[in-house]
Amino acid sequence: MVTAILLAAGKSERMGAGTDKAFLNIGSKPVIAWSLLAFERCPDIDSIVLVVRKEQKMAAQSLARMFGISKLSRIVAGGTRRQDSAAAGLEAADIDTRIAVVHDGARPCVTPEAISETVAAARRCGAAVLGRRMIDTVKYAARGTTVTRTEDRSRLWTVQTPQAFNANLLRRAYKALAADRKAEATDDAQAVEMLGEDGVQIKIVESNAPNFKITTADDLQLAAAVLKV
Amino acid sequence: MVTAILLAAGKSERMGAGTDKAFLNIGSKPVIAWSLLAFERCPDIDSIVLVVRKEQKMAAQSLARMFGISKLSRIVAGGTRRQDSAAAGLEAADIDTRIAVVHDGARPCVTPEAISETVAAARRCGAAVLGRRMIDTVKYAARGTTVTRTEDRSRLWTVQTPQAFNANLLRRAYKALAADRKAEATDDAQAVEMLGEDGVQIKIVESNAPNFKITTADDLQLAAAVLKV
Repeated sequence: MVTAILLAAGKSERMGAGTDKAFLNIGSKPVIAWSLLAFERCPDIDSIVLVVRKEQKMAAQSLARMFGISKLSRIVAGGTRRQDSAAAGLEAADIDTRIAVVHDGARPCVTPEAISETVAAARRCGAAVLGRRMIDTVKYAARGTTVTRTEDRSRLWTVQTPQAFNANLLRRAYKALAADRKAEATDDAQAVEMLGEDGVQIKIVESNAPNFKITTADDLQLAAAVLKV
Repeated sequence: MVTAILLAAGKSERMGAGTDKAFLNIGSKPVIAWSLLAFERCPDIDSIVLVVRKEQKMAAQSLARMFGISKLSRIVAGGTRRQDSAAAGLEAADIDTRIAVVHDGARPCVTPEAISETVAAARRCGAAVLGRRMIDTVKYAARGTTVTRTEDRSRLWTVQTPQAFNANLLRRAYKALAADRKAEATDDAQAVEMLGEDGVQIKIVESNAPNFKITTADDLQLAAAVLKV
């Protein structure tokens, strides 16, 4: 069983206080509906757990009904940090889940094909993340906005979601992370990296298709172009 | 005097051999025309040097005439590497140039405002680059596509162009780079960094407006959305 965990409990600080970017529209569908539909349409996904802010559970429920998300199994409340939300979603996943696929709900351009490729890589290797080679130059600024140096970008990747894992591996990773209250992981792969288990390899599934995170109003317009609405 | 150096001599490998991406259309204008028009419309730019592949000089000339690029002063042939093209453009700039602004022609979404901000920062500090805080997680992969570790992205920036410099500083940087045949700079700022002069600071001008490089056919569609064509 392959379960998707969709994270939509973020605070959308850049969009202005009180705005929940997951519920902003791209064309006639909210951001989170686009993400849900990609997983609904992906044949490699059996079940979906949706993680939202507590006060959005009802809204999320009716949204899922409106867009016919038949694979939705549970809607749960997220936590303060991304990792708390991912852990809450994982806990709500069916016990028979063999592969857990985490996705940021704010990445609505994800395609069923990209999800399938990531799941396939996780089946082979235990852990896989969707990523892209770095195109822009990368600068390191030790303080503020003054350049300290140029990084060697040839071995750098920007990684996004979906990220797919052997479910037990991801459970161990989030359990270990929760045991250390101060530990922070920027993504699910980092939680697995921090576990430091021998023999675990995280594979990058290369994709150049647009899969950016909605963080500004400009991004909504870009997403509309990608989604052709 | 502020001179822009527009680089459009790249090989466009990802678009397929023989394709010159600078001359592909976004709406009814080629990529390079959009870039030229942003500099034409920016009140802080006095003059433009356009760098293209040798065989494109005639095409570039008629394109500039067609789109009314009155600030165009010279069209010169580029070199094999980006740094060779930038050096060729710099050499062709008017001797009175006090600030040189280098821009990748394949970034057609650049705005006159972003150019002005970069020029203003270079007037204050001697060197400035347009950049964006890293939004995606960054992974380092020592070999192939297996994740080695997660980078601390809090001090990482993706930097693009325009990049603006005190013209004499940039001249010294490209002269030093040319003297060492093996040295490679991924961008103009790195050429200045490699010079290692005391007291030189390169400032990052933060911008979240879309300013991606056209590398795939998808990017052309995205750019059309940004440019509202």
